[in-house]
Amino acid sequence: MVGKLITFEGPDGAGKTSALMAVIPLLKAKCNQDIIVTREPGGNPIAEKIRNVILDVENIAMDNRTEALLYAAARRQHIVEKIAPALADNKIVICDRFVDSSIAYQGAGRGIGEDAVAQMNLFATNGLTPDLTLYLDVPSEVGLQRIKRNRQNQYDRLDQEKLIFHKKVRQAYLQLAQDNPKRIQTIDATQDLTTVVDQCRQVIEQRYPDLFIV
Amino acid sequence: MVGKLITFEGPDGAGKTSALMAVIPLLKAKCNQDIIVTREPGGNPIAEKIRNVILDVENIAMDNRTEALLYAAARRQHIVEKIAPALADNKIVICDRFVDSSIAYQGAGRGIGEDAVAQMNLFATNGLTPDLTLYLDVPSEVGLQRIKRNRQNQYDRLDQEKLIFHKKVRQAYLQLAQDNPKRIQTIDATQDLTTVVDQCRQVIEQRYPDLFIV
Repeated sequence: MVGKLITFEGPDGAGKTSALMAVIPLLKAKCNQDIIVTREPGGNPIAEKIRNVILDVENIAMDNRTEALLYAAARRQHIVEKIAPALADNKIVICDRFVDSSIAYQGAGRGIGEDAVAQMNLFATNGLTPDLTLYLDVPSEVGLQRIKRNRQNQYDRLDQEKLIFHKKVRQAYLQLAQDNPKRIQTIDATQDLTTVVDQCRQVIEQRYPDLFIV
Repeated sequence: MVGKLITFEGPDGAGKTSALMAVIPLLKAKCNQDIIVTREPGGNPIAEKIRNVILDVENIAMDNRTEALLYAAARRQHIVEKIAPALADNKIVICDRFVDSSIAYQGAGRGIGEDAVAQMNLFATNGLTPDLTLYLDVPSEVGLQRIKRNRQNQYDRLDQEKLIFHKKVRQAYLQLAQDNPKRIQTIDATQDLTTVVDQCRQVIEQRYPDLFIV
């Protein structure tokens, strides 16, 4: 038996990370397998260095495809060093963002194309696909509103541009959910956090009843 | 009209770079178009930083696929910043190694698989293919002998391993040459450098007679 890879996905402002962090202790309390939580770069020095190249503010001329390849490289190293060994060790790995984020953000948002990004990421994952993905869905206007509230109107000047980008990202996520109905479970993230967290917990427990002590 | 992309390829010890450097002035003297010579990372800061991550001696745990993705990322940025603008400007771009090297070294040598590496590099090149490739072929024993001579027996301990690796790389190049007979011209690099250089020059001039004043 091997572990399970569960990913959390969603556009900015969906409250994905908050929900994930809140649900972990609830799952751990009832789970008879080890649960680890991770996100890229996952604490490994190589992926960390790759992320530094991506995030370097001097790199304003970075091409979209260069960036997508760098994210995929960091992802690969994260898989090899952390995710794959944990799965081989029968753990439940909960990952904050994975390939779907690249398809939505780079493929759709940046306009490279969803298929091209999906295909290229297959090279990085060598076929590793999440067993279950929780997609926290939020309309773009709501997502942006939440970001603005959190960051004190920092994004005002680019609001219109951001809305178009955000809509493309969300559209790609909705399409992925439609194309992968068994893997991707959509959660309405306009609900209050408590409800969202509870639904996340239920989806996971119901998918893997053997793993949880009810 | 757009320029031409000409690549030089070959396993270690083929004398590829020496031949390329020697042929450039001969071509420039007779060519009625600008010729630029380049190799990855091509002097651009982003690709330079990516190469630093690859070459960092601390990164001993770097996965083969991570490395291939990083080379592809550096290649992408090199294309966007240097190769594509030069081609658009009607220049002849001569590039020391390109996608074929990744297919031979990462795909065959490191065992990732030639098709997987070729496919992933399509994402990086977005379909840009050399117009002409000069493949300098050398039997693996000869190539390694030359490297040893150049580097004063530095590689003795790993000779056997290197021979197997080198043979895989060469085999992949020969297959590429067979699969792309129009694009890839094979030059017998066991000949003396003067002859190799002369043949390189002839191949290029004969392929593009309009570009050279005879």
